[in-house]
Amino acid sequence: MFSTEELAQLRERGQAWREQNDGGPAGRKAAYKTLSQLTVAPVYTPEDLAEADYLRDIGLPGEFPYLRGVHPGGYRDRLWTMRMFAGFGRPQETNERFRFLLEQGQTGLSVAFDMPTLYGYDTDDPRAAGEFGKCGVAVSSLADMETLFEGIPLDRVTTSMTINSPAAIIWAMYIVVAEKQGVPLEQIGGTLQNDILKEYLAQNEYIFPPEPSLRLVVDTIEFATQRLPRWNPVSISGYHIREAGATAVQELAFTLADGFEYVRRGLERGLAVDDFAPRLSFFFNAHNDFFEEVAKFRAARRIWAREMRDTFGAQNPRSGWLRFHAQTSGASLTAQQPENNVVRVSLQALAAVLGGCQSLHTNGKDEAWALPSEQAALQALRTQQIIAHETGVTDTVDPLGGSYYLESLTNQVEAGAYDYFRRIEDVGGVLPALESGFFQREIADAAYVYQREEDRKERITVGVNDYQVDEELSIPLLRVDREGEARHVKNLNHLRQARDNREVAARLRALEQAARGSDNLMPPLLEAVRAYATLGEMMGVFREVFGEYQPSWGF
Amino acid sequence: MFSTEELAQLRERGQAWREQNDGGPAGRKAAYKTLSQLTVAPVYTPEDLAEADYLRDIGLPGEFPYLRGVHPGGYRDRLWTMRMFAGFGRPQETNERFRFLLEQGQTGLSVAFDMPTLYGYDTDDPRAAGEFGKCGVAVSSLADMETLFEGIPLDRVTTSMTINSPAAIIWAMYIVVAEKQGVPLEQIGGTLQNDILKEYLAQNEYIFPPEPSLRLVVDTIEFATQRLPRWNPVSISGYHIREAGATAVQELAFTLADGFEYVRRGLERGLAVDDFAPRLSFFFNAHNDFFEEVAKFRAARRIWAREMRDTFGAQNPRSGWLRFHAQTSGASLTAQQPENNVVRVSLQALAAVLGGCQSLHTNGKDEAWALPSEQAALQALRTQQIIAHETGVTDTVDPLGGSYYLESLTNQVEAGAYDYFRRIEDVGGVLPALESGFFQREIADAAYVYQREEDRKERITVGVNDYQVDEELSIPLLRVDREGEARHVKNLNHLRQARDNREVAARLRALEQAARGSDNLMPPLLEAVRAYATLGEMMGVFREVFGEYQPSWGF
Repeated sequence: MFSTEELAQLRERGQAWREQNDGGPAGRKAAYKTLSQLTVAPVYTPEDLAEADYLRDIGLPGEFPYLRGVHPGGYRDRLWTMRMFAGFGRPQETNERFRFLLEQGQTGLSVAFDMPTLYGYDTDDPRAAGEFGKCGVAVSSLADMETLFEGIPLDRVTTSMTINSPAAIIWAMYIVVAEKQGVPLEQIGGTLQNDILKEYLAQNEYIFPPEPSLRLVVDTIEFATQRLPRWNPVSISGYHIREAGATAVQELAFTLADGFEYVRRGLERGLAVDDFAPRLSFFFNAHNDFFEEVAKFRAARRIWAREMRDTFGAQNPRSGWLRFHAQTSGASLTAQQPENNVVRVSLQALAAVLGGCQSLHTNGKDEAWALPSEQAALQALRTQQIIAHETGVTDTVDPLGGSYYLESLTNQVEAGAYDYFRRIEDVGGVLPALESGFFQREIADAAYVYQREEDRKERITVGVNDYQVDEELSIPLLRVDREGEARHVKNLNHLRQARDNREVAARLRALEQAARGSDNLMPPLLEAVRAYATLGEMMGVFREVFGEYQPSWGF
Repeated sequence: MFSTEELAQLRERGQAWREQNDGGPAGRKAAYKTLSQLTVAPVYTPEDLAEADYLRDIGLPGEFPYLRGVHPGGYRDRLWTMRMFAGFGRPQETNERFRFLLEQGQTGLSVAFDMPTLYGYDTDDPRAAGEFGKCGVAVSSLADMETLFEGIPLDRVTTSMTINSPAAIIWAMYIVVAEKQGVPLEQIGGTLQNDILKEYLAQNEYIFPPEPSLRLVVDTIEFATQRLPRWNPVSISGYHIREAGATAVQELAFTLADGFEYVRRGLERGLAVDDFAPRLSFFFNAHNDFFEEVAKFRAARRIWAREMRDTFGAQNPRSGWLRFHAQTSGASLTAQQPENNVVRVSLQALAAVLGGCQSLHTNGKDEAWALPSEQAALQALRTQQIIAHETGVTDTVDPLGGSYYLESLTNQVEAGAYDYFRRIEDVGGVLPALESGFFQREIADAAYVYQREEDRKERITVGVNDYQVDEELSIPLLRVDREGEARHVKNLNHLRQARDNREVAARLRALEQAARGSDNLMPPLLEAVRAYATLGEMMGVFREVFGEYQPSWGF
């Protein structure tokens, strides 16, 4: 971008500046590093971008490599979807929260399921004891899903569902609810988390071994590709990787590596890349290090576009569009001085927006310890609305584009991700890497470094290792809703008696047979759901056929 | 910066992009404009900066034109001063709040005075009735100033004092307190607001006509130049101009125009520009429009550096250093859903920091209607600490530098300021402009445009013209502290009896004589203060000699 002469002049001035100022004050800190341990220079200038070719590396929004966004109009055309993650207790209660949030201007739904549901147990399963409705809503059958979305027209909202091992089953229930509302399949929009790889890497909510788990994921991708063109069957998730202690670079690298693995599996299934890749979506964390987070989002788009085109031969531009949901970091919130979390969430949300997220969940200030209260959830939604309507940052696309620091950091973060891609290749790919504990060790190491920095006060967390006040920490005990649980179990028992149990048994046998074969499992799942087979019954079939996974690595 | 060929290529791609996308969706809004009504383009690219010469227009921090900051090390060397504006009731209570804030990690003091003090009345003056201690601390004499800073070593904190018409008197009291603590004058650091021009423009807390008011300002500048080298005798303030309804461009233009006027007056007094200009400081608003605010701060530095060098012939680089305090916008806060103000303050504070402020006050969430409670003030201080320590934005200087949008907006904002400089020249300069109501009309027009946009919902204020909730607005009535007032008056009466009243009378006569002449008024003021003459007595002398001002414009 610069003539040789100009560059020489820049370098000379830069050199003079560095010589003059390196002899100056040492600065407040021994070292300046991002949360990913990337070194931060005192100042960034065009010198740092001298290698960049604007049209090739940065370009325009809506154009390859999509660094500046996948849509040319950005938030001028459409704001991100304000999608607050919510769910607790019985479907009735969560339905009320959903309606409240929609009334308050929320523009999409996001379902949190309770622990038994996430592990595929019905509420009355002994293994579910004590966990009913605590961190999400209990959904044991189609009947519960019907209640959950009562009065909410599924052709007019999009729904995100955080569910992984039982994702295909929960999705089948959602599809049947939409069918019953009379919504054609091709009009149903939403996102299934359904990213089992990150469960093995970080979140540990897997059930089956990796291979059958991946088969289920590919079944949903295939079914969506064929029947639900507006659905995102997988939300490839860095969020939990980051929450487990990973750095921004690890979050980026491991998430994209998982994404490439899903693409490979889809190709192996015989799908054409341009048929399914456009519906893969992503889910990232929005953490504290403001510029590194924005750099991460932008680098993610550029890497994905490049790899889809160059490695996977995609020709449809949409295959290279990395669209992502962001959630502010729960792990960064503090139980101390909880009002401070409103500040953290505001700044993290701004980073997500400046990074061009497609949808956003902002954490409630009490979310360090529990699901947010209605008041905290509303406050968090208001945070998004203030950013959208009062700050002007939505009036031009990628307003940070060109910042010497940000563009340079974007390059650094990207280089860090490619370094990990090579290391993952070196151990044989994503599955060997996760089976050998590679990811888990890298994350644990990063978490250790961070903790040591906090202990040594090289990183300050306000209210935790500095600026403390005398206060009584009110860490709420998650209440066990015994009455709600009893009513839910009663409904479930009633369902088991009222349904046609011969039909259920037949559908479960058909499901088992399909599971032992290689056909797509979505059609038999839909049949079983329509017959009101329970979550636990269908998962039981899979547990028997696929077995349960025990990792072999350890450290 | 670009070769002709590269620029042609850029323009071609840009043109193609615009042609392709202007035919696209119309966008969410009819027009995209900053709060200063500057048009925002869909996207910014190097094309927008094609005219810029990096080394001339942007350059490096600590180097002319200081766009990227006056210090090469930025916040790596030293964080901004966290300076919370505080003051209420009697000096005793404010002294307690000061100590609390210093214990919580605040790094500088900032005194709010009550209305009678701002207008130069003693607490027992009938014209002060009902206003004691409401919006600041009451200081009627040196005795009150001694109480206010009891136990606070004035060689170890810097103090900012928001006082204008009576600024010289209040400053004299502060200097005498420092003397009594044994602090040499050359070690006293701090800032006097003392910007009388903006009072005529926007804030209306003037007393005397412009000419004697300016004489008092120049007296303090001269005295600081000769005796208090660490003191900033004027804080040239855009804050109140903005709060009165001005745009960012108006705030910038009118504030700098005021600054140039003080420089001219200093030169007329016979001071050498490089002797006094380095101690002129600034005070800006940090408002909602995120990028426009950062652009405003950066443009302010570049304009000031250029004009000090080119118009006023400054040779000392420090004469061109625009150093500023920022305060988040009180007017932008809402009584509705007050928690939302924590969000606004967080984002505004981030803009101030990314703009390179030297010190910062963050508003309490309840500050839309009253002085902040201790809890709200602490929360607001924590906001600064989180930005300083958790976000990483302080690890490199001017991290936004180079952003196509920001640099372009900086140029636009700067051009808008120069346009106003020309219009002010056209009406004969700052004094004729303020005496004819030029500034006041411009501000009122801007405020009207803003209000109309709000009324038409072209601008959304969350919780005000959209996203309302049913809530009871608790607008606190400012309590009248009758008991505190009575105790304060009792102390004042006691002082009047205990002091040497012949000495006081002699000092007031000397002050009157000096006021009728043209000598610097600081020495006779210091003498009168040492004799415990009251604020009202000294202001009474000035009122008699200088008269009171009535503006002749109206609209």
